[in-house]
Formats: sequence, structure tokens, C-alpha cells
Amino acid sequence: MSSVTTFEINEPLDMHLHLRDGDMLKLVGPLTSNTFSGALIMPNLVPPVTTKEALLSYKQRIKEACEGDTFEPYCTLFFQNDYSYEFLEDVKDDIIGIKLYPAGITTNSETGVSSMDVEVLRPTLESMSKLGIPLCVHGETNGFVMDREKEFMPIYESIAAAFPDLTIIMEHITTADAVELMDKYDNLHATVTLHHLLITLDDVAGGMLQPHLFCKPIAKRPEDRSALLDAALKAHPKLMFGSDSAPHPKHKKECCGCAAGVFTSPIALQVLTELFEKYQALENLNAFVSLNAQKIYNFKPLTKKIKLVKKDFVVPEIYEYKNENVVPMYAGETLSWSIED
Amino acid sequence: MSSVTTFEINEPLDMHLHLRDGDMLKLVGPLTSNTFSGALIMPNLVPPVTTKEALLSYKQRIKEACEGDTFEPYCTLFFQNDYSYEFLEDVKDDIIGIKLYPAGITTNSETGVSSMDVEVLRPTLESMSKLGIPLCVHGETNGFVMDREKEFMPIYESIAAAFPDLTIIMEHITTADAVELMDKYDNLHATVTLHHLLITLDDVAGGMLQPHLFCKPIAKRPEDRSALLDAALKAHPKLMFGSDSAPHPKHKKECCGCAAGVFTSPIALQVLTELFEKYQALENLNAFVSLNAQKIYNFKPLTKKIKLVKKDFVVPEIYEYKNENVVPMYAGETLSWSIED
Repeated sequence: MSSVTTFEINEPLDMHLHLRDGDMLKLVGPLTSNTFSGALIMPNLVPPVTTKEALLSYKQRIKEACEGDTFEPYCTLFFQNDYSYEFLEDVKDDIIGIKLYPAGITTNSETGVSSMDVEVLRPTLESMSKLGIPLCVHGETNGFVMDREKEFMPIYESIAAAFPDLTIIMEHITTADAVELMDKYDNLHATVTLHHLLITLDDVAGGMLQPHLFCKPIAKRPEDRSALLDAALKAHPKLMFGSDSAPHPKHKKECCGCAAGVFTSPIALQVLTELFEKYQALENLNAFVSLNAQKIYNFKPLTKKIKLVKKDFVVPEIYEYKNENVVPMYAGETLSWSIED
Repeated sequence: MSSVTTFEINEPLDMHLHLRDGDMLKLVGPLTSNTFSGALIMPNLVPPVTTKEALLSYKQRIKEACEGDTFEPYCTLFFQNDYSYEFLEDVKDDIIGIKLYPAGITTNSETGVSSMDVEVLRPTLESMSKLGIPLCVHGETNGFVMDREKEFMPIYESIAAAFPDLTIIMEHITTADAVELMDKYDNLHATVTLHHLLITLDDVAGGMLQPHLFCKPIAKRPEDRSALLDAALKAHPKLMFGSDSAPHPKHKKECCGCAAGVFTSPIALQVLTELFEKYQALENLNAFVSLNAQKIYNFKPLTKKIKLVKKDFVVPEIYEYKNENVVPMYAGETLSWSIED
């Protein structure tokens, strides 16, 4: 494997992405669309995307921001308990899934659901199940920060058991427990981010405090990272790449009360290639970043071939557009793989 | 207890304090000396305090910074493997203890010991034991951030067992395991900070990231805080108050790569009173902040009575002196107890 100097990824997909809106969208949109064939776009705008009108207009703004690139934004709705069957039937072909947030659990989730009781969620979930709309979930309780995902497991189990035909995606899993749970129900799947394959709480708070590595869910223990990495490297068929790349301007990261989110879009494919090469698993990378998602969501992405070459890539210190800016993970550092122009 | 409106603390002692040097010392020194009778001063200057000359001159600078207050700085040396018996005998009456840092484990600890093997430490520890000089220890390994203190426990045990006459203080303990270990060896004692009685990792990284609550050892789990609080509230005789109040200028806290340390000196007695009142344990506060330390270290502090009154105290947003500044814990918030002028 030491002789590999180029590597091709077909139809790379980022199945969990935050593109925000306005100038931030114009800044970060192309940093995904120039390398990915498509991405599942999170609906946690202010206000969140809950109507067909908001959905279509957001999709249009994304397409404009990413114009010129072969790129499809797969949009989602922000879960609400009172979505009618008729509404969902009408909007079905314009979305790839619906994202459920417990209220207040992360950035712009204040209007999420206040109860995770299956009976409260039942009307919307039943319609989704019938219509074949996948459910994407931010699975954290409001308990102690290291336990939030584990404490959420019984909720995943109750939804998975109550709606066996509903495709459920545990978003951005961070624990060995979640990896294990994925195999327990046929309809449970998961995304994992790049940064949760790389870091633990040690990297955030073990030395000096590193706000650019602070995210939700927070990075966990070494044994958790190890379980996530194992599953990714073997391209576990129920696991997809979802960067959860989440831009916040520099001044909201390097401050008192810093916002949660790691920005990885412009480095994701290079670092994934580096990582899969290191563990001699390059043959599984295309399944992890594309094929698994195609099967789980049952769709055919736009054709796009990305060629990576073994050549130094110095990660920019900051990306800027008008008044917006964002600091990427590994800012200023040198990666060993580049994307061929 | 609801009728308590004044409370007196006699000879309050802070048995773990960072005063730094230069203008920072001039800024923070008086914020301790105006309320405490004495404090055990940490030796991790740059360079660390390892000679009699450095020790006496630092003590003099502290006294000058705190001039006008009834206050005694109890100084310490920075542990070295090659301290001779003669040197320690000569310096004995000028120090209250010697502080041992594993190399690189916290602020200015780069020249700490690189091996915690008892045999490597033996010459200095043997002299200390014979001369009755207490050993203060920053007890963390360089393992995963949540496990560092627990992983250090076997080292405490081996030193405690090898030197039964040596008074050992586990500094700033943060775990239920350390509370338990304290009772296992007659010669093991501990300090606990104010902030570790109040916060968990949740307060640092559970919501937005809070650099002013980032410290080493990092705040742990709810059950750890609970064990520490129980021991403090009952004034466990082997446990002393040691604030570990550690000033860093604002720009080194609110930045990328923020330094570890919480600055609590100017609010410590007020918040402790609030806390002990809340749990109806005010009768134990004087033991926790003074009597226990007097017995463990076997010394008589300067007479000083501090009267607290139930009156709002708005914590300053920042303390400043010349080019130095520091943001205290609870900056801008209102405490229910004040120190009477």
C-alpha cells in the first residue's frame, strides 16, 4: 500500500451537513460542492425549515451558492409533532428525510420536540413510516455531557421497535454503545463525523482548551473513538459518513461561551484518505463515503469522480467571504493528500 | 438556619494558591491577603522555586505585595530529585512543604519529575520524611483527561506505604476515588478547591464552552462532585480548603488554546459561606477552611477574624493592575454573602 500515490472517490456524499444561510452559506456551500456529489442538509436555520415554501426556497439558495458544481443538496425538514400526512405526502419528493432535535440540545434547536415519548411522536412517525421518509435523530438527553448519547439509547430502541418500517439514522454517533446498538435493530443506521474518528475529549480539554474542536455531541473516550474508527474502516454497511461540518465565525469560537461545531468540509476527503490509507483500508473508503448511504437512503447520486493525489495540502488558516469567516479543523497544518484540480 | 445573617470565620487559610510574580502578584496577592490569614503558595514560577535564595526573595515579594494585611505566605519548594539532606535541613524552617509535579502536567511544570517511581524519588522523600517536611502532590498521569487522577492512585499508595512518616497531601482532588483513598492511609490528606465543589465537566463543556471554568485537573462527573462536597460539608478531618486559584490574563483564557485555571480568591469565602449555609453545615466551615489545615500541617496561623454578612456582593467583571488583568469565577454575578469592611 505504500506505493499508493493517487486515489479516486466516486460520488462522495456528506450525509450530515450544516450550510447555514446568507453569506455564510455562500462561503461554505462551495467548500462542500466542489468536492462532494451531494450532501444531506440540516434544517436548523433560524427559523427552522418546517414548510414546503421554506424548504424549496432554501434548496434554491443552496443551489445558487453552489452554482457551477456538480452537486445536489438533499434537504430535510425540521421535525414537528403536528405534521399532517397530507403535508408530508406533498413534500415527500423534495426531502430525503426529517431531522428530529430534542429541544435546546444543540445550535438552533430551541424549537425541537420537548418530549421524546413515542406516543407523542407517533402521528408524525407513523406518516413518515407509511410514506417511506427516513428519520434523522440528534440522539442526546440533557444529562451529564459524557452520558447524553448513552442515555438516549432506550429512546432509539423504543422508536426502532415501534416503527420497524421506519428508516432511522442515529446522527453523528460518538460512543461504542451506539456502534453496538446499530446492529440490534434492522432499521437503525448511523452517521459518524470525521472529527469523532480522530479526536477524544483529550484533544478538546486534555491540554490547553481547544474551542475549534468543541462540538456536540462532545468527543468521548479513547475506547469510543476506537469503536467508531473500526466500524468506519471496515465500512460497516449501516454506517455512513456525515461530517456534521458546522461553521461558526471565528469570534464565536475563540471567546468566552464558544459555540459547538467543527468545520471540516474543505479537508474531509483528504483526511479520510489519509486515515484509511494509514489503516490500510482504502478499499473500503468509497463504501463509507458513498455506497452505504446510497443503499440506506435508496437513491442514485450525481456522477462525480474526485481524484486525490499524494501531495502536501496546507490547510488555510481561515476561509472568508464578505463579513463571514470560519476556521477549519487543522488550520495551518499540512495534510499529505490533496484534491487534484 | 434561615435566620443567619452574619457569620464569622477565624484564621481562614487557603492551602493551595498561585500568586505568580511581578505585576500579577501585585494584582492578585491582596485579593487573598485581605481576607485570608495565610496561604500555601505554589512554587511553579518561571523558573520554579528550587533554591533558598529564590524562596526567600519570592516570600519577600509576596509580603511586599500584601503589605498592610495580616497575612502569612507559607512558601513551598518545587520538588527535585537531587535535593540534599543538608539543603532541606537548612531550608526547613522557611517552607511549609515541597510540591511535586509530574513533568509537563500543568502550568509551568515542565521541569517537574519525569518518573514517579518511588525508588527514583526516594532520596528526597527520605530526607523530607526525616525532617518532617510535608509533600504536596499534583496527582495526575498523562492518560485520558477523565482518568488521570484515578490512574495516579497507585502512585499515591506506593509513596504513602513506603514513607509512613511522611505527611502527603493529594492536591486539588476531583474524584470520589480520591476521597475514598484519603481514608486508606494515615499519612494521606487532601485539598479540594471551591470550583470542584461547585462544577462538573457539564459546566465547562456541556453547554457553550466556558474557558473560565477550564482547569487542571478538569472538573469530573456529578458523582465525583457529590463525594467531594459531602467530605467538605462534614469537614472531613483529612481534607483542607485549597482554592488552587490560578490567575491567567483574560486574553489567555478567552482564546484558542486557553490556559487552565479558575480564579476564585476574591469570592472564595463568600461562596463557601453560601454553600455551607445552603447545606446547613455552617458549623463545619471553620474546620474546613482553617482548623483541619492547622492540625495536618501542625502550625498556628496569624489571628484574623473575617465577618461575613448576608448582603449582595456583585462580583467584578475583571480585576486589573497596570497591564495585568484577571477574570474571576462568577464575574458579573451576584453572591448572597459579602465580607464586612
